[in-house]
Amino acid sequence: MPSLTPSPRTTLHRLPSRGSYDRGLIDAILDEALICHVGFCEDGQPYVLPMNYARVGDAIYFHGSVASRLLCALQRGAPVCATVTLLDGLVLARSAFHHSMNYRSVVILGVAREVTAPDEKRAALTAIVEHVLAGRSADVRGPSDGELATTLVLSLPITEASAKVRAGPPVDSKEDQRIPCWAGEIPLALTAGSPRPDSGLAPGIPVPAGVASYKRRP
Amino acid sequence: MPSLTPSPRTTLHRLPSRGSYDRGLIDAILDEALICHVGFCEDGQPYVLPMNYARVGDAIYFHGSVASRLLCALQRGAPVCATVTLLDGLVLARSAFHHSMNYRSVVILGVAREVTAPDEKRAALTAIVEHVLAGRSADVRGPSDGELATTLVLSLPITEASAKVRAGPPVDSKEDQRIPCWAGEIPLALTAGSPRPDSGLAPGIPVPAGVASYKRRP
Repeated sequence: MPSLTPSPRTTLHRLPSRGSYDRGLIDAILDEALICHVGFCEDGQPYVLPMNYARVGDAIYFHGSVASRLLCALQRGAPVCATVTLLDGLVLARSAFHHSMNYRSVVILGVAREVTAPDEKRAALTAIVEHVLAGRSADVRGPSDGELATTLVLSLPITEASAKVRAGPPVDSKEDQRIPCWAGEIPLALTAGSPRPDSGLAPGIPVPAGVASYKRRP
Repeated sequence: MPSLTPSPRTTLHRLPSRGSYDRGLIDAILDEALICHVGFCEDGQPYVLPMNYARVGDAIYFHGSVASRLLCALQRGAPVCATVTLLDGLVLARSAFHHSMNYRSVVILGVAREVTAPDEKRAALTAIVEHVLAGRSADVRGPSDGELATTLVLSLPITEASAKVRAGPPVDSKEDQRIPCWAGEIPLALTAGSPRPDSGLAPGIPVPAGVASYKRRP
């Protein structure tokens, strides 16, 4: 998997040792997370909204109503930033200053393109369902022509992008290591609870394996 | 707890039934989440970055290096959007179209103010540590004057803000309810694993109760 070339806008200045342009790492983060935070500007005011998405090859797709202000702004070619963050843990140091968090994040800059070709649009919507739960799209009713018409699908290429990762224990100064206080990490992960069947579920329909043991981290 | 007055910029147009301006709800979401996604614009390009924060009364505080490009832009008065999202579950409908996610999110718009008064600055940094782990700040070394000087602290008032919440089961059409496919919710939560002590930890230091049984949701 190749590395992206950093642009002046994606070159990391703060803690560059945490940064990466490796597509394998970027893709792994994009494939694990469930939501991205999408930013756009209107009259100099930024707006940041959580969105579902899916990566397919060298792009991410997101979708929403044709009435969505965010999606309409992007459809008109507004520059966009899509940021994905996985929180992996709390880093408890012996000094307040060195407290931190372990995380993996990706920032993608660019201009989105509206997906209008029906085949690509259907494939993108399938990918968004599959991103949430592999195998799901085969079990459910696909979008009708009417549903397709009210859905806007956009594609953002993964070309100007970077990842940032912090992992591992706290980094205290030698002096601070003498402070008699517990220090270390608390790992964090997004985990699934027991599935709740819909109240209208007909009897005899089994819980699919992917639902019963839903796991986000591969 | 009072409700905020919606501004033209925070009035929800899409699915307004999911929206709220209730400060109690907004505060509960801000107090549970660990990170916010902060957006700012530079030459029409949005940038969105994950940040730690803490709510104190009617404002959220965030901090970082005085060399941070994001924080310096906000220090200069750039309009900001801080978005906090808690992912509560996957909503699996019988149609691809009605798949959804359960979530609680808050969007705060405004202009941040640099915190320069040493007392407020120290209190804000303490709040950020306490937000992650209540009681932690009493156990650790507080910021030195040097650390304080290299840290920029900003405050964003919770005045122009809104919450958005989706909860509950999938909403399928009557016709789709006949599709013989499992439907329901998979609850999701950020959960803590076993704490990992720092390798340099002196023997005999016990794991604090709040670390051993770390829980984010109250």
